[in-house]
Amino acid sequence: MEIDIQKNVLEANDTQADINRKYFKDQNVFVLNMMSSPGSGKTQTLCKTFGKLASAIKVGVIVGDICTSNDADRLKTTGVQAIQINTDKFGGDCHLEANLILDSAEKLKAADFDLLIVENIGNLVCPAEFDIGEDARAVVLSVTEGEDKPVKYPLMFQVADMAILNKIDLLPYLDFDAKLAVDNMHQVHPNMPVFELSAKTGQGFEPWIEWLESKVCEKTGKNF
Amino acid sequence: MEIDIQKNVLEANDTQADINRKYFKDQNVFVLNMMSSPGSGKTQTLCKTFGKLASAIKVGVIVGDICTSNDADRLKTTGVQAIQINTDKFGGDCHLEANLILDSAEKLKAADFDLLIVENIGNLVCPAEFDIGEDARAVVLSVTEGEDKPVKYPLMFQVADMAILNKIDLLPYLDFDAKLAVDNMHQVHPNMPVFELSAKTGQGFEPWIEWLESKVCEKTGKNF
Repeated sequence: MEIDIQKNVLEANDTQADINRKYFKDQNVFVLNMMSSPGSGKTQTLCKTFGKLASAIKVGVIVGDICTSNDADRLKTTGVQAIQINTDKFGGDCHLEANLILDSAEKLKAADFDLLIVENIGNLVCPAEFDIGEDARAVVLSVTEGEDKPVKYPLMFQVADMAILNKIDLLPYLDFDAKLAVDNMHQVHPNMPVFELSAKTGQGFEPWIEWLESKVCEKTGKNF
Repeated sequence: MEIDIQKNVLEANDTQADINRKYFKDQNVFVLNMMSSPGSGKTQTLCKTFGKLASAIKVGVIVGDICTSNDADRLKTTGVQAIQINTDKFGGDCHLEANLILDSAEKLKAADFDLLIVENIGNLVCPAEFDIGEDARAVVLSVTEGEDKPVKYPLMFQVADMAILNKIDLLPYLDFDAKLAVDNMHQVHPNMPVFELSAKTGQGFEPWIEWLESKVCEKTGKNF
């Protein structure tokens, strides 16, 4: 019973995700769904990213949290347009579903952007199950979370197109084996690109920025 | 529709939780449900705790993860009995439900223990909604996760009876305001006890150990 209902919820979401995908194609915008545990540094990574991206790339952000507009407020200080979704109105949902994304994209006027980032709710489990019509999925793991998370939460790392290993500035103070963490990611998702960086210091951002810019160019057909 | 079904699932869980509560009373065991984001240090906190608890207290652990038995293996090295639940058999569930807890407690023979700890799946959202018949709930927040998590994920901090603020050994290397984090916890849950400690160094464990021992004595009527 529970599994059937869950299946129906996921099927309804998949149908909406296909509608979103067509909408984002018509609007000629590249959509990245960014997921992670709470506190792994998605917002700080995005703030630093927006200062380094080619300035001609127009960026919008949809950010999900159960409560507060803290993250949207932080993102707006970088000059991007951001809209906050709070799921406490929907029973405190632990993930963003496709219908909420389309509503928010329309409010933000996605056609005005080349890059739309969805900063999902901090949760390494449930958001991985919900297609939102995105072009690519990023998972952020911070070095304070332990090397074994990719094998303990494999679905998230399987559905991701790339990973960011964040907070590498803290490596000198931790017993964390970055090679083992990357090996664990590749165990569940062979050859997935992994960008090791620090959203605090800016170290290691170049390959990630190149990846993101190339994806935006590829989708939109524009050069920046 | 979705909300009704969710209500039914939660009601069925609550019924089972009441059965568990009676079982744990009959077995004369204090049950603590420990919850947090992935990587906040629940397992390391428990390993350090077991080395400091009064040795006469007999401890068992039920540990939930989607995949791997890493955590149970680590816990067993401290000499406690531990059983691993992997939810990948149940569709990768993001939380532990009451029926799984009773099955595991019976396998572990809860009557042999004074203290049974349930280390829940790493998730700051969904586990807060599922009563498992526990006597108390602990939430662990690590200082690398940001001060605002209690106000962004309020339900978890509202249902918790106490909080551990972990990894305080990293404070010199972070822009983290511990007072603000505790204030945010108290904003959503006034007067909740908060134990600031480092599971790595052992710093700050005394008040937490005293709290835990007193709860075990109170429930079981034994002195250790």
